[in-house]
Parts: sequence; structure tokens; C-alpha cells
Amino acid sequence: MAKQPELDDFRVPYFDDGKKSSKFSLEAFDPAAKPFSTGSKDSDRARLSEIGAKLDTLQECLHAQQQRRVLLVLQGMDTSGKDGTIRAVFHDVDPLGLRIVPFKAPTPVELAHDFLWRVHAQAPAAGELTIFNRSHYEDLLVPTVLGNLDAEAFERRCCHIRQFESLLADSGTTIVKCMLHISKEEQRQRLQARIDDPSKHWKFDVSDLEARKQWDKYQAAYRDALDATSTDYAPWYVVPADSKTHRNVMVAELLLRTFEALKLEYPPAKESLKGIKVE
Amino acid sequence: MAKQPELDDFRVPYFDDGKKSSKFSLEAFDPAAKPFSTGSKDSDRARLSEIGAKLDTLQECLHAQQQRRVLLVLQGMDTSGKDGTIRAVFHDVDPLGLRIVPFKAPTPVELAHDFLWRVHAQAPAAGELTIFNRSHYEDLLVPTVLGNLDAEAFERRCCHIRQFESLLADSGTTIVKCMLHISKEEQRQRLQARIDDPSKHWKFDVSDLEARKQWDKYQAAYRDALDATSTDYAPWYVVPADSKTHRNVMVAELLLRTFEALKLEYPPAKESLKGIKVE
Repeated sequence: MAKQPELDDFRVPYFDDGKKSSKFSLEAFDPAAKPFSTGSKDSDRARLSEIGAKLDTLQECLHAQQQRRVLLVLQGMDTSGKDGTIRAVFHDVDPLGLRIVPFKAPTPVELAHDFLWRVHAQAPAAGELTIFNRSHYEDLLVPTVLGNLDAEAFERRCCHIRQFESLLADSGTTIVKCMLHISKEEQRQRLQARIDDPSKHWKFDVSDLEARKQWDKYQAAYRDALDATSTDYAPWYVVPADSKTHRNVMVAELLLRTFEALKLEYPPAKESLKGIKVE
Repeated sequence: MAKQPELDDFRVPYFDDGKKSSKFSLEAFDPAAKPFSTGSKDSDRARLSEIGAKLDTLQECLHAQQQRRVLLVLQGMDTSGKDGTIRAVFHDVDPLGLRIVPFKAPTPVELAHDFLWRVHAQAPAAGELTIFNRSHYEDLLVPTVLGNLDAEAFERRCCHIRQFESLLADSGTTIVKCMLHISKEEQRQRLQARIDDPSKHWKFDVSDLEARKQWDKYQAAYRDALDATSTDYAPWYVVPADSKTHRNVMVAELLLRTFEALKLEYPPAKESLKGIKVE
């Protein structure tokens, strides 16, 4: 009997201060795989709905305690489904309990600071579940592909990221990072679909086609970035994402496990309220 | 045949630079009324779901255009259902399209600025739908009830608010403000239910009981505040809110009408994308 896949099989090995013998291979992960699918799209949607209800309760508990914080980082090539993942995974979670932070190209003011300045400002507060839709990892990937960040500067940024994430973790933030992994062919189909549907043109930026031409460079930059920043306090997971329902279920399962590991409990009843009758 | 209720019957008359003959009466609105109920709780939920789907599309269109902004302000006494309204009305709206801003008691840094400073910073950007869960109106209500804002200072703050909201409106923001109106007896029951359920104690703040003792003062402060700040560019609506399903449907109907009046359309197709084949 085949071994059941485990979430940790999709975790990028931890960076261990340069002692690793070799880099992990992003190519070893099949974007079309559906290891956490429950069998059909319908059953995946049912499972997602089940997890959504649990996440809703767990998020309320996180909020009630006002102690821990949870940060989900979503990265992936254009059309890999970051927006769709957020919509699907959090459909049944109280919107009051979510803070979604989209990171766009930095503004002049943001560029006038270090690359983690705007990110730090958006770190989750006590009791918050925050989702980064893109993140500080763009500041590794884009300049690398454009040739504006040499190997040494890349390593320095990775080191700053590890130290920054260690600060967050040490201050009560549980971090989980997902790379939504699609194939080049799947991206081609999704981009073509957007072009072929004029009502979707507003979503389309011609620079997406430019980025696609650099596909291999982006894949290499992703591999190097994930390799250097997957840590026990902020692990990276590769999420096979050609199938949307699989992608959603896997991210939801990861987040559910992350929340369950926190062993959250509602704050105890207040003795002082016992027996009070409201006038 | 009785006249069908219209949303505008629940609009606070516009402030017109002191020429009004008399203040509107909050007491004239029955908190237990269900003028926009469709008949039963089930049919209200169905209607809410129908509006939710429309709001989802309209919000996407707002986002696609990146021009207009929409701001929903929610105010109401403790337990009036601000959180519940947000959860219910926006359940089917993409969480990526929402920004929910809860205003708590001001921090020392916030207090060191004028009372609109922290509010202005949270104003919706182009393409955004923003919800204020409490708002700058707390800065009229609370100090008035506590006796820290005399009539003249109250009027000055109202004037500043009108000017501030006029700036937002003039810059492309459509503002709609709802007071969730519950009865004193309904609040008693809701507070008592929270006390009687120890698992809900974390939601309970003893100061809620203190505020309740000032019920009449708060109602008077609400009336004066709404009276002085309902304008054609930022109207106030009184939402009968003893019934939760009615409250949700009415806020949803108001927001739907607000969005529909914007006559939003998706941006046109881009000629430059025509016929492109993705490699």
C-alpha cells in the first residue's frame, strides 16, 4: 500500500546556517499532483467547508485570547491563485477576524526605507490572523530576475528576512508560508483565458507576459529564496496548485494544523460576572 | 392598502446649516419594526444571500475601475449587532474586496492628535469598500455622555465632521451611515444572555453595564449627533435592529441601492490584448 502523503513531505527542508549539503529541488514537486484531494472536486469542497467552520472557531478563540498571532504568507507566479485561495479558504471565517494585506510594487516612500519597513508595519497584532497576499519575498524574487540583486546581496536579504521572521516568531507570531506551485503550461492556459475574455482584461497587465518570459529565472529564484528562508519558526510549503480545489484544501489543511498546534482555549469565565442581573 | 416603506423614510433629515425648525425624533422609530423584512427569517436570509451575490459583483466592479470609493459607517449601542451585521451582510462578498476598520478607545498617540486624524488615515482608497465598525462618532457620543464636551464644543465637532465628510465625498467617496437602533429591553436581554453563558464572558466588559446606566443620555446624544451630521453627501439611516435578520436585510438593501446608484461598469476591453497568443 502506498504511503499516505503528509503535509511535511511538502515542507522545504529547514535552512541550517549553511550546513546543508544541497539545495532542495522545486522541480521534484509536481504542480499537477493532488496529494491532499479527498477524491473529487465535490468532496474537496465539502472538506474545505468543514475546515472553514473549524478555522472560524479557532480564529475567534485566537481573538478572544488576545495573545498569539498567526501570519499566512502566500506567494506564487502570476495566475497561481493567491486571490482565489484567500476567497475559498476563508469563505466561512468571520471577516472581522481576518486582515488581508496585499503587497503591490513599492511606492516612492516605501522605497525610501529598507525593504522590511512596510512589511513590519503590517505584522499581525495580538489576536490577529493576517494574510500576506505577496510579501517581502517579492523583494528577493523580482530584483534577482531583473539582475538588480547579486548573489551576495541576495544572501544578505535572506539573512535579514530570517532575523525579521525570528523576531515575529519570538514575539508570539506563528508563521506559515505557502508557495502556490503551478506549471508553465497551466499558467499559459490561465493567461490565455484572461486574454480571450474581454470582460477580464482589467485583471490583465501586459507585464505579466514579460514576467512569463523569465519563467525559468523565477523558478530558480523561488528555489533559492525558499531554500534560504525555510526555518522551524517560519517554514515554507510547496503547494501543488494546478488543481484549484486541491490547492485550496491543502492550504486549509496546513492552516488548520497550524491552529490546532496552538492548543487555543477560550478565556475562562469571569467570576465577577456570576449571578449579575442586568437592570 | 398601506404605503410600502421606503428606505428614505428611515433617513435622518438633512442638516441644512441651522435652518431646520426642529430636531428629528429617534423615538419615532420603533426598534422592533421590520419594515424591510420579506416575511420570514428564512426568506430574509434568502434575500440577504441574493443581495450578497450582487454586492460581490458590484464590489469587484468598484475594484476594477479603481476610481470611486465606498464607506459604510456602523454605529449603535453595545449589543446592537455591528459585528453580526458585518458578518452577515458581507458573507458572500470576496474578503479581498473588503477593509473592515474597528475603532477602539483611542491610544495615547491618537489622543495626541485631533479626533479625525486616525479616522482620515483609514479612509477608503480608490476602488475600496471600507466599513467603519464604530467611528469618529464615538468622539461625539462618549465625551458628551461623560460630560466632557459642552454644547458649543459638540457643535464645533459636528461642523468638523461635516467638513471632513464633505472632503471625502468630494474626492470620490460615497458615504452611507447606519445607526443600528435597538430597544433598551432588547439590550437587557442580550447583555443578560452574555452573562449567563460563561463561554461568552470574554466578550463582556463591565463598562458595558455602566454605559447602559446612561441609556437615555446616549439616546439623546445619538439624536443630536445624527441630527447635525446627516447630509446629502453622507446621510444617516436609522435601522430598526431588534430583529437581527431585519437589520441585516435593511443594511444590505441600503448598500445595494448605494452601489447601484454609482452605475458602475467594468472597464472596457483592451484593444492591445486582442488576438494575443500566450507562448
